[in-house]
Amino acid sequence: MKTKNPMRQRIFTPGPTQIPERVTVAMSQPFPYHRGPEFKKLFEEVTANLQYVFQTQSEVLLLTASGTGGMEACVANLLLSGQKALVIVAGKFGERWQEICQAFDIETIALNVPWGEAPDLESLNKMLQAHSDIAAVFCTHSETSTGVVCEVKAIAELVHAHTDALVIVDGITSVGVLPFFMDKWNVDVCVTGSQKGVMVPPGMAYVALSERAMKRFEMQQRDEALMRRNLPHYYLDFAKAREAAKERMTAWTPAITLLMGLQESLRLMRETGLENLWNHYARLAQAVRAGVQALGLELFAKVPSNALTSVKVPDGIDGRKFVETLRTSHGLTIAGGQGPLKGKIFRVTHMGYYDHLDMVALMAGLELALRDLGWKFELGAGVAAMQKVCAC
Amino acid sequence: MKTKNPMRQRIFTPGPTQIPERVTVAMSQPFPYHRGPEFKKLFEEVTANLQYVFQTQSEVLLLTASGTGGMEACVANLLLSGQKALVIVAGKFGERWQEICQAFDIETIALNVPWGEAPDLESLNKMLQAHSDIAAVFCTHSETSTGVVCEVKAIAELVHAHTDALVIVDGITSVGVLPFFMDKWNVDVCVTGSQKGVMVPPGMAYVALSERAMKRFEMQQRDEALMRRNLPHYYLDFAKAREAAKERMTAWTPAITLLMGLQESLRLMRETGLENLWNHYARLAQAVRAGVQALGLELFAKVPSNALTSVKVPDGIDGRKFVETLRTSHGLTIAGGQGPLKGKIFRVTHMGYYDHLDMVALMAGLELALRDLGWKFELGAGVAAMQKVCAC
Repeated sequence: MKTKNPMRQRIFTPGPTQIPERVTVAMSQPFPYHRGPEFKKLFEEVTANLQYVFQTQSEVLLLTASGTGGMEACVANLLLSGQKALVIVAGKFGERWQEICQAFDIETIALNVPWGEAPDLESLNKMLQAHSDIAAVFCTHSETSTGVVCEVKAIAELVHAHTDALVIVDGITSVGVLPFFMDKWNVDVCVTGSQKGVMVPPGMAYVALSERAMKRFEMQQRDEALMRRNLPHYYLDFAKAREAAKERMTAWTPAITLLMGLQESLRLMRETGLENLWNHYARLAQAVRAGVQALGLELFAKVPSNALTSVKVPDGIDGRKFVETLRTSHGLTIAGGQGPLKGKIFRVTHMGYYDHLDMVALMAGLELALRDLGWKFELGAGVAAMQKVCAC
Repeated sequence: MKTKNPMRQRIFTPGPTQIPERVTVAMSQPFPYHRGPEFKKLFEEVTANLQYVFQTQSEVLLLTASGTGGMEACVANLLLSGQKALVIVAGKFGERWQEICQAFDIETIALNVPWGEAPDLESLNKMLQAHSDIAAVFCTHSETSTGVVCEVKAIAELVHAHTDALVIVDGITSVGVLPFFMDKWNVDVCVTGSQKGVMVPPGMAYVALSERAMKRFEMQQRDEALMRRNLPHYYLDFAKAREAAKERMTAWTPAITLLMGLQESLRLMRETGLENLWNHYARLAQAVRAGVQALGLELFAKVPSNALTSVKVPDGIDGRKFVETLRTSHGLTIAGGQGPLKGKIFRVTHMGYYDHLDMVALMAGLELALRDLGWKFELGAGVAAMQKVCAC
């Protein structure tokens, strides 16, 4: 099949997200020395605006690593040898928390949730009663592998009602995208990545720590018996990051161009307003979902996250061929399914620098590729359904 | 004192280095999806060109982390619990190897070298004879804290003559800057960072692994008894990086803009030729050293690395005030001393996107600031001495 798009590429994968032009321009400027006064100003502004995005008054640490590095930092710094953790596993990223804990020999109790479903609070309640001796509960706010959102607020309430455990949240595709209130919801730790809601290229993780998490961490750093149980790590050390932050610096040479981009992106997010962003993404998600359903397709996530929409590949269509056709014929890159969902679902993002007309372009492409592969529907039906949502 | 430079900033710290304009332009392009075919081409080209820069036929892994993260990866992946390592400590970065080993409970035997001097091979020889049971020897090719280069080739020969230990080299300010031949010198592992010789902004580390290092790693991954002695880690895992590299991808979302910059920078390095680059930096270093000596200043490093020049702050001059004057009056950022050398030396880089006329500008600024602080010399003497070197 000849391509209909010989030049232009469009990416709609759930991260890395599209970057605002002004962020690209900011990253193209000469960068300041990371130990000089100009950097300190940048550090201060970026940290304050990240607090706004996390909705916290507490500390946010900047790590040069992908989101996975940020997740590992939470485990390696906050847990101690011999402790147990409860992990909510509802997809590939819940599995990642579990794998990281296992790599550090932390015993994990898993609340296994069928992929596509949200964690059931009653089951969590029972597990918490049975395992009140856990040191942390790990959860994934927006599970990007399935497109499902979970109730972080209710989960944190339950955990705090039963245990002394820290609530540690993977907010990688939720912070800046979905309503998230670190302080109000009593979340202890939240990690996000540069290449998602904050619309910067990949390469950095940001970790927000509550007062309670910091106190516990400090206590573990002071008590000699506990110190002996510290998990081995060096580069991703919170103590060094916090020490450097007092001087408005990072412990190691940071990914400075990404911080310059972050400064600009966070300015844009503040100008737009966090609530407006949340509503904007909700609207894009609603429109796309109306569109795919108008084509006769079925949504995969039972409780969908507005960061992305996951859709079942319809019977008779080859999921991989669909993704490939979109890329080669229409210059559209979307994500297929991961792990057990390979070939069974496709995923398109809403988070990042998009508007409703970008989503229309995406939908038109989805329609054309479905038509190419023989799916029967009225061409334009998806776009029209989206426009109806947009018109309201 | 009023600034003589209200607009322009020049950075001459030994990293992050200055970036070629074409690298900045490359990093400003829309980035490809890191799981798509366009990325695979980028991955392939970058890996092949890094092999050239490391002078190796073996594997080079791409990690999203600063150089320190790359160093930790070497320790965490290649050593086993209960093993011992010999660390050559001749400055702050030698100390870092030691600190990382200690964080992972690896017993270290240190060859302590006075700061400013190069490791003495006879002392190393004796230590190797006394400790033939070590698993690795860590050294720092170009010790950025003192400006000293060490004889990696001779060190590797000695180590291999006495022990079975892996020779693991911090090449962070040497790869692409000083003659370095991974394969010819029988170096087992070498790590470098994006923000030094390869002239990309900070945020990535590259780790080259010899056949021998890979074989040992694979053996440790296969043998059950050895596997139980693996050091805890997840994000910086070599096995996952190598597995992904088979598909020409990274294990986690990489710092893709930095890889796009790297692609362009490595093209420039290939066009220029590695040997020409080494000679170029040697020339810049020679010129700057002639210049500072013509001003009556004394070099600090006994065996200087051409990545940078370290100079003793002369008696009667306040080292910190000197650095500050350069910055505020002349828009020049250089580095002071670290740790015990704070206020006692200053350091200027030669590596990165500089020519001899940049070095002249630097020298003119150094002269003006020295004059401001009362140092007696003939204004222009440093620049003239440099020009004599450049004229040859």
